[in-house]
Amino acid sequence: MTLLPANEELDLQLLKRPVEDVLAGFLAVKRARNTASRLPDLTTALRDFVMAGGKRLRPVLTLVGWHAAGAHGAPSTVHHLAASLELFHAFALIHDDVMDRSDTRRGQPTIHRTFAQQHTGPGTAHAAERFGEGAAILVGDLALVWSDELLHAGHPTPAQLDNVLPLLAEMRSEVAFGQFLDLEAGGTTHHSVETALNVIRYKTAKYTIERPLHLGAALAGAGHTTLEQLSAYAIPLGEAFQLRDDLLGVFGDPATTGKPALDDLREGKATVLIALALERAHPAQAATLRHYLGNPALTEDQAHAARRIITATGADLFVEEMITERYEQALFSLRRAPFAVPAVQALSRLADSAVRRHT
Amino acid sequence: MTLLPANEELDLQLLKRPVEDVLAGFLAVKRARNTASRLPDLTTALRDFVMAGGKRLRPVLTLVGWHAAGAHGAPSTVHHLAASLELFHAFALIHDDVMDRSDTRRGQPTIHRTFAQQHTGPGTAHAAERFGEGAAILVGDLALVWSDELLHAGHPTPAQLDNVLPLLAEMRSEVAFGQFLDLEAGGTTHHSVETALNVIRYKTAKYTIERPLHLGAALAGAGHTTLEQLSAYAIPLGEAFQLRDDLLGVFGDPATTGKPALDDLREGKATVLIALALERAHPAQAATLRHYLGNPALTEDQAHAARRIITATGADLFVEEMITERYEQALFSLRRAPFAVPAVQALSRLADSAVRRHT
Repeated sequence: MTLLPANEELDLQLLKRPVEDVLAGFLAVKRARNTASRLPDLTTALRDFVMAGGKRLRPVLTLVGWHAAGAHGAPSTVHHLAASLELFHAFALIHDDVMDRSDTRRGQPTIHRTFAQQHTGPGTAHAAERFGEGAAILVGDLALVWSDELLHAGHPTPAQLDNVLPLLAEMRSEVAFGQFLDLEAGGTTHHSVETALNVIRYKTAKYTIERPLHLGAALAGAGHTTLEQLSAYAIPLGEAFQLRDDLLGVFGDPATTGKPALDDLREGKATVLIALALERAHPAQAATLRHYLGNPALTEDQAHAARRIITATGADLFVEEMITERYEQALFSLRRAPFAVPAVQALSRLADSAVRRHT
Repeated sequence: MTLLPANEELDLQLLKRPVEDVLAGFLAVKRARNTASRLPDLTTALRDFVMAGGKRLRPVLTLVGWHAAGAHGAPSTVHHLAASLELFHAFALIHDDVMDRSDTRRGQPTIHRTFAQQHTGPGTAHAAERFGEGAAILVGDLALVWSDELLHAGHPTPAQLDNVLPLLAEMRSEVAFGQFLDLEAGGTTHHSVETALNVIRYKTAKYTIERPLHLGAALAGAGHTTLEQLSAYAIPLGEAFQLRDDLLGVFGDPATTGKPALDDLREGKATVLIALALERAHPAQAATLRHYLGNPALTEDQAHAARRIITATGADLFVEEMITERYEQALFSLRRAPFAVPAVQALSRLADSAVRRHT
């Protein structure tokens, strides 16, 4: 069955509302059970984290992928799958934040910081930090485990499970490998453009764009050809999406991005932008930039100087060109694909907003 | 179908061999794919960790639970479920070791220590430690994700999945809550016997004994009554098993346990043994014991003094009595249960070896 006639537009805001309801309902039940069992409260932190928002990009793509492949099967099943991906994403972010020791996420303190602040036991600040990290690892583990529960709570048919589970397993492994690539490259300032693009491919292009589309389509019964057609759109768009993210991470306005424009520089994040800047810089510029990158105490003035060097090398404009190139490739692939018209329109709008955004 | 005629003995060593084969085969395929994809190697560490041994208690209990409930269904499915639990256990241990900052596991360096040693990037020992912890979190995440794959690789029927998945979800949540209870109580030396028993209940009695039996039985189609009869055996036995572990953690011979007899004391592990000793100690003894507990630089002489105080309070003998009491309760429950004779015999032997062991 389809939710919409083939000539009607897919309203992305409307589309994700049932996913929000599934998430809110599931986490409310978990929280009530947590309270009733008188176990320590790990659920409130997860609920607050998930319900605080985020773009819900993966759930939306799951739904659009489902529509692209004909929207076969019960809508409730795809809503649960989409919600399940959002919970999986919470797991990935919470563990990433522990690994990166990030202080904030979506403008709020990260989970490990929140638990560290709540630590009432004796001991040093170090003990509180360890407690916070341990608690955040466990909250992340719960999110992962519950993402599985959510998927099955949507009562997929055996045929749907056979289609979806292998792709889900791929996605989950890819995320771990992508994060490890990032971890290896992080803080070195000697990563190549190629390494940075490899991280982007696994951490964003596949995980954020391709796999959610695949999973939605697979739930609708899509075969190999449809999945490949979705990939031809998803991989270049995913790279463009992350390249935009990297630009915003250095040049974005903290008031709209919700995170300090110092974080990526302080962390020495191994982005394509930075790899390009270092490759194109004069030796003196490169030395100064390397000196600043990964310095956790970087000041706003130093960040300003770092940004000027990046701009002087032309790396930012080069990344803009890479974004445009990939965006156009994604749209080109989309025009050749035999998806339902509303899905094509929605994917086209998603491509616009992924590439032309300020947050 | 049953693997064995009802009057034949369940040879536990023979029983777990196909599980070892499933684990080894699955991890070999993962490792080959990892190498072929030219992604950084996260798989070798996991393979080495899993194949280095361990008691395989959870897989064995899964198999015995399956036999206790009539051994209905394909043997290959229960072998995959049992192997899946072992991989889940690897996840739990790897993350626990990160949280506890343990140096060794099964006589080998822990995963985060191994990766920290391999860290080739620039920076301090601190950076290497962070890298090791990040890598270990990811290896643990992979183990969890792959435990799911292994379960489904055994091709459970839809009816089997309906029976097994809710119990699996319960188990996975319980482990996270149990570990959080442990994290909260750890390092305080002010935990009560009740708190310590609550940790034991979630971390060991349910996770190590009850849920594996339940899962095997559920796969064979067991209903609520059978699960309750298994619990009546499993919970007291699980408590006895952990109480024995706690005694071995302080008084065991490192040559047979494979871990230093200092670890539990240095870590200030919130065990029933320690809670009892502190409760029964004279004020001066308690003060000395508290001074030693949780000191990461505790010497062998100080550990010896701590052990003498524990013995002087009679806490060790009291724990021995608790073990005996629970062991007898488990056997009493077993005699009243209508399980197949070979399963009863196997469970009885398992109870013996869980309680009377040196490793």
